[in-house]
Amino acid sequence: MKTLLAGLALVTCAAALCMPSIAAETPPALPPLNVPAKTLPVPTDVSPEMQQIIARPLRPDWDKPPTTADGWRELANKIAAAGSSHITGMTDRLRVDVQMDTIDGVKVYRLTPDQIAPRNANRVAIHVHGGCYVLNPRSSGLADALLLAAIGQMKVIAVDYRMPPDAYFPAALDDAMTVYRAVLKTTDPKKVAIIGASAGGALTLEMMLRAKQEGLPMPGAIAPGTPMADVTKVGDSFQTNAMVDNVLVSPDGFCDAATRFYANGHDLHDPMLSPVYGDMSGFPPAILTTGTRDLLLSNTVRVHRKLREAGVDAALQVFEGQSHAQFYRDDRVPEVKEAFKEIAAFFDKHLAQ
Amino acid sequence: MKTLLAGLALVTCAAALCMPSIAAETPPALPPLNVPAKTLPVPTDVSPEMQQIIARPLRPDWDKPPTTADGWRELANKIAAAGSSHITGMTDRLRVDVQMDTIDGVKVYRLTPDQIAPRNANRVAIHVHGGCYVLNPRSSGLADALLLAAIGQMKVIAVDYRMPPDAYFPAALDDAMTVYRAVLKTTDPKKVAIIGASAGGALTLEMMLRAKQEGLPMPGAIAPGTPMADVTKVGDSFQTNAMVDNVLVSPDGFCDAATRFYANGHDLHDPMLSPVYGDMSGFPPAILTTGTRDLLLSNTVRVHRKLREAGVDAALQVFEGQSHAQFYRDDRVPEVKEAFKEIAAFFDKHLAQ
Repeated sequence: MKTLLAGLALVTCAAALCMPSIAAETPPALPPLNVPAKTLPVPTDVSPEMQQIIARPLRPDWDKPPTTADGWRELANKIAAAGSSHITGMTDRLRVDVQMDTIDGVKVYRLTPDQIAPRNANRVAIHVHGGCYVLNPRSSGLADALLLAAIGQMKVIAVDYRMPPDAYFPAALDDAMTVYRAVLKTTDPKKVAIIGASAGGALTLEMMLRAKQEGLPMPGAIAPGTPMADVTKVGDSFQTNAMVDNVLVSPDGFCDAATRFYANGHDLHDPMLSPVYGDMSGFPPAILTTGTRDLLLSNTVRVHRKLREAGVDAALQVFEGQSHAQFYRDDRVPEVKEAFKEIAAFFDKHLAQ
Repeated sequence: MKTLLAGLALVTCAAALCMPSIAAETPPALPPLNVPAKTLPVPTDVSPEMQQIIARPLRPDWDKPPTTADGWRELANKIAAAGSSHITGMTDRLRVDVQMDTIDGVKVYRLTPDQIAPRNANRVAIHVHGGCYVLNPRSSGLADALLLAAIGQMKVIAVDYRMPPDAYFPAALDDAMTVYRAVLKTTDPKKVAIIGASAGGALTLEMMLRAKQEGLPMPGAIAPGTPMADVTKVGDSFQTNAMVDNVLVSPDGFCDAATRFYANGHDLHDPMLSPVYGDMSGFPPAILTTGTRDLLLSNTVRVHRKLREAGVDAALQVFEGQSHAQFYRDDRVPEVKEAFKEIAAFFDKHLAQ
């Protein structure tokens, strides 16, 4: 009876009587900012090639993600098919030899540019592709790997990690780690770079957290591009760049749905899904790349700040007017070449020869 | 008669007949992006202190600049008076001694922290304040100078340059150069840093352009914070962050009016007013600072890219959720300390001892 009364009192209190004092203890909610509708012209201070990319309309069906496992597989295959001639074109123009292989059971592509710089003779980069952990299967995720191989004149091993519906969290990370461990058997870790963008940027950071857990050495340098470092939708640019970023469009769009499909019920706050919440001390030198219209601008700059606070040699490059991951869309765009020259130079500075 | 006919033909052609072919030669206008109205919550991934700053409403009267010389002087004095206790508080908390002086006729403040780091014994920073070339007279522009003096533990000479309506373009730059030339008489240029934000960031860049013109040596390092590097309103964040940045608010606001008041009819494309159009080769190492909501985010990242293209060792830091120049607003804000620790470390790395 005593317990019941206490319980009743608590309920009554929570519902009405105690509200003023609870409210007094909680700081008052800070007022949001109401921003009127606006029309954004295509910026004039980027190359004509980048203007064409910025001028594209919002991604069609950004708010209509598949709702079934088969639906996701079909979407991934459809996008891969649509982009295959683009990847083939990049491969040809950049003169990169691409060979399929497996490393300890994980599918990979071995990329060899027609010219390997002498300083890179003993260096290798591991590439983890983007695509919200669900898209860009097989060669369709190779764009940034091709750019690094050709512009950086270095060998790249691109991990074609398992994806849903074939395998869920943490399969992508497991596969990337399998390749990293295998590479370490034959290569000085200081001669290894890791590169990835979007989900691949997150995977790059997650690999560092996992390597620390497993007592593996850090690689020589990493390039997490516009990383999906916080998939809990925390980050101001999720709001400021909503309906501005023509690739991701909205924090409530297809990429969020894909990530939850991969997470498969796992807590999205886990640093192995939202690495911004991980301990970044001891991370290797890192170069981050994003754009002013990127929905993940905040994700990227938060990781940069967190790396710097942890004492990591971290560089940030932000490109004018670009939405999510447009910095590696097409090798013929001057800003894309510029971004990869910077990444290659950063690797060259920090990797052992 | 022949000339007259030719003239008539040209007019006729321009007005009508030739239009189709002219239009055919011009690429079709790229479609703008229509962004709906939105409500931006105060981000949760910044300190409570920064949340309070981000939560402030848009600057009152941002679209009602003075229209007379006396009006500008009154506004500058009014803002300075309103902020004087804040500057006094910062000076006291940061334990910086501030002495008025003149150098070759230019008014300056000499800032001495209570502790000068031994490595900084022979180093000095020159500070040029912000305020759209018209605001922040006398000690009201000292905030970032105080932060550098205290957090960097180094001497700072803050230039209280002449401003309209007392003196117009290029008076501010002339005064800053007078101080720079005087400092060079007694100090190794490699032991000199230059720091400024907003108009002060632009002045820092303009000083480098002017020093090159005059054959003066470059200083050891510079910190142009969120520079007004393009006052012609080119830059994507002028649009994307319009009505989002609660400090500058709009490219058509008080700061644009103040800059035109300073320019006094001079071409705003002149690199001495829009230094992004200047030749930045040979510039010293530079650290740039901005925020994701900054109206000058694009100005800042464009300067960063331009410096990197010119081969300059340039670092970029972008703070989550911050509007224009909020990175030096208050010494009690964790992100402000963080920004200045970075700037001080950058100077320490690049200045000769």
